[in-house]
Amino acid sequence: MKGLCRTGATLLVGAGIGASVSSLLSVKGGEEDERAGLLSRVPVVPTVRASEATVNAGGSAVVMKYGFPSLANIKTRESYVSSYDPRTRTASWVIERLNPASLRGPSDRKYCDFKEDESVHMFHRATNADYRGSGFDRGHLAAAANHKWSQKAMEDTFYLSNVAPQDPHLNQKTWNNLEKLCRSLTKRYLNVYVCTGPLYLPRQEADGKLYVRYQVLGRNHVAVPTHFFKVLILEQADGRGVELRSYVLPNEPIDEKVPLERFLVPIETIERASGLLFVPNIMKRTTSLQAITDR
Amino acid sequence: MKGLCRTGATLLVGAGIGASVSSLLSVKGGEEDERAGLLSRVPVVPTVRASEATVNAGGSAVVMKYGFPSLANIKTRESYVSSYDPRTRTASWVIERLNPASLRGPSDRKYCDFKEDESVHMFHRATNADYRGSGFDRGHLAAAANHKWSQKAMEDTFYLSNVAPQDPHLNQKTWNNLEKLCRSLTKRYLNVYVCTGPLYLPRQEADGKLYVRYQVLGRNHVAVPTHFFKVLILEQADGRGVELRSYVLPNEPIDEKVPLERFLVPIETIERASGLLFVPNIMKRTTSLQAITDR
Repeated sequence: MKGLCRTGATLLVGAGIGASVSSLLSVKGGEEDERAGLLSRVPVVPTVRASEATVNAGGSAVVMKYGFPSLANIKTRESYVSSYDPRTRTASWVIERLNPASLRGPSDRKYCDFKEDESVHMFHRATNADYRGSGFDRGHLAAAANHKWSQKAMEDTFYLSNVAPQDPHLNQKTWNNLEKLCRSLTKRYLNVYVCTGPLYLPRQEADGKLYVRYQVLGRNHVAVPTHFFKVLILEQADGRGVELRSYVLPNEPIDEKVPLERFLVPIETIERASGLLFVPNIMKRTTSLQAITDR
Repeated sequence: MKGLCRTGATLLVGAGIGASVSSLLSVKGGEEDERAGLLSRVPVVPTVRASEATVNAGGSAVVMKYGFPSLANIKTRESYVSSYDPRTRTASWVIERLNPASLRGPSDRKYCDFKEDESVHMFHRATNADYRGSGFDRGHLAAAANHKWSQKAMEDTFYLSNVAPQDPHLNQKTWNNLEKLCRSLTKRYLNVYVCTGPLYLPRQEADGKLYVRYQVLGRNHVAVPTHFFKVLILEQADGRGVELRSYVLPNEPIDEKVPLERFLVPIETIERASGLLFVPNIMKRTTSLQAITDR
């Protein structure tokens, strides 16, 4: 916990309680049909079967096979495609595609440095100075270790537009474990599409009302997300369709003993909170979508 | 003041202290050249002279003469063009064009009702129920009274995507006065382009750090802006160029005795805080831009 900043937060959206994140965000009241969410939306008429047996890493067309969660300020890089939010100075989402080929290679992190993204107007760009002394890590959204296949691909993950302020303990422990899980899933699936982004979740304060509250860093006011999401689109090797796993983790220290499954949430939770949409696009590209939201 | 919600806010960004909003947001340190802002950016090479002597109201091409502040989720309506933010459930900006012709007509507000914008996915859409009992008005961004020229144009201002939660006193008093000022300026200028939007400004809390904090309403979590901006692009009748006035008002009661000029801020303040850009586009369309930021 981060002291003052987190006081009260853990009542509703504390570590390891994915279900409570979900219930905080989900709709209560007269829209029960809508709440059924994924179940009511799966399956719809498919257009293309998910059976593409490619192993080459990178390339924006293949990375975006399952669609764009939004269309604002799209940036295409060697290792990922992202949508940038100029107000928060971080990406809204970053999508990468992992498979055994993308994880292998001679690339070395020691030749990489975090750098400003000069494709962003200087009024809306994060700098290394914004992070300095803040107490927050420069947390990769698309992870460096996912892109050993190309030094350029790895270097591109060091743009500060692919970074958000992240609690150091989270970054180095549980978040790192989640990134490792993504890589390990490449052993079981043809491709692992990973979409990562920040969330700014409301919580109830003493007056009973809901408030969004987040710190901003440095002179450019880089937003510190309250949470992060990862949506995993797991492509089965035999063309049987895709599995979906969606995680929400609070941006605070999390005991590594808490199993990652505890952070699984319904995709609708992320779609509502982020302003993004995943399922309609995915359903255009597969005959079968299985959402894994629980052990 | 709104009690708990505003405690501390007024130290930095209280009513009538536009200058302190500006200093809170502006960059300090090694970027003094950049801080010069407008002065260093005016003039640049012009492409078209602002001498178009049209009086017809509406039409998205004419409304957008001075450019798009951003390109995400653009909606074109009879009376305005807007960019929608699906995360906050309000527009990021709404642009309308006022002139004497657009202010005249038989349209009547009594035939208008606030309505959901069905062009927005239901996960990201504000509803009337979200506002009910919240204590906030449904504050128009493009004002209804600006579009008497057409009943349809007036009705289009009642989409909840053209609305944000607004303090009732502000809405009915000082904000209304600012809207009246916009209309009265049509007597002196060929066209008055008005861009209106929400802001979510940080403020310093007791720990010395900066935080953005805003309430969210209803089951759809409609964001309550901390402030609103209005950018007025005032087109001179004789082709001499344009004048720019940019206002930031806190979303709280403001004594009507405070002159509106007190809320003038440098346009850079709004550009930095909103993630939008105005000046580069305007400079492509005029030979002369005079920024009025002070009495």
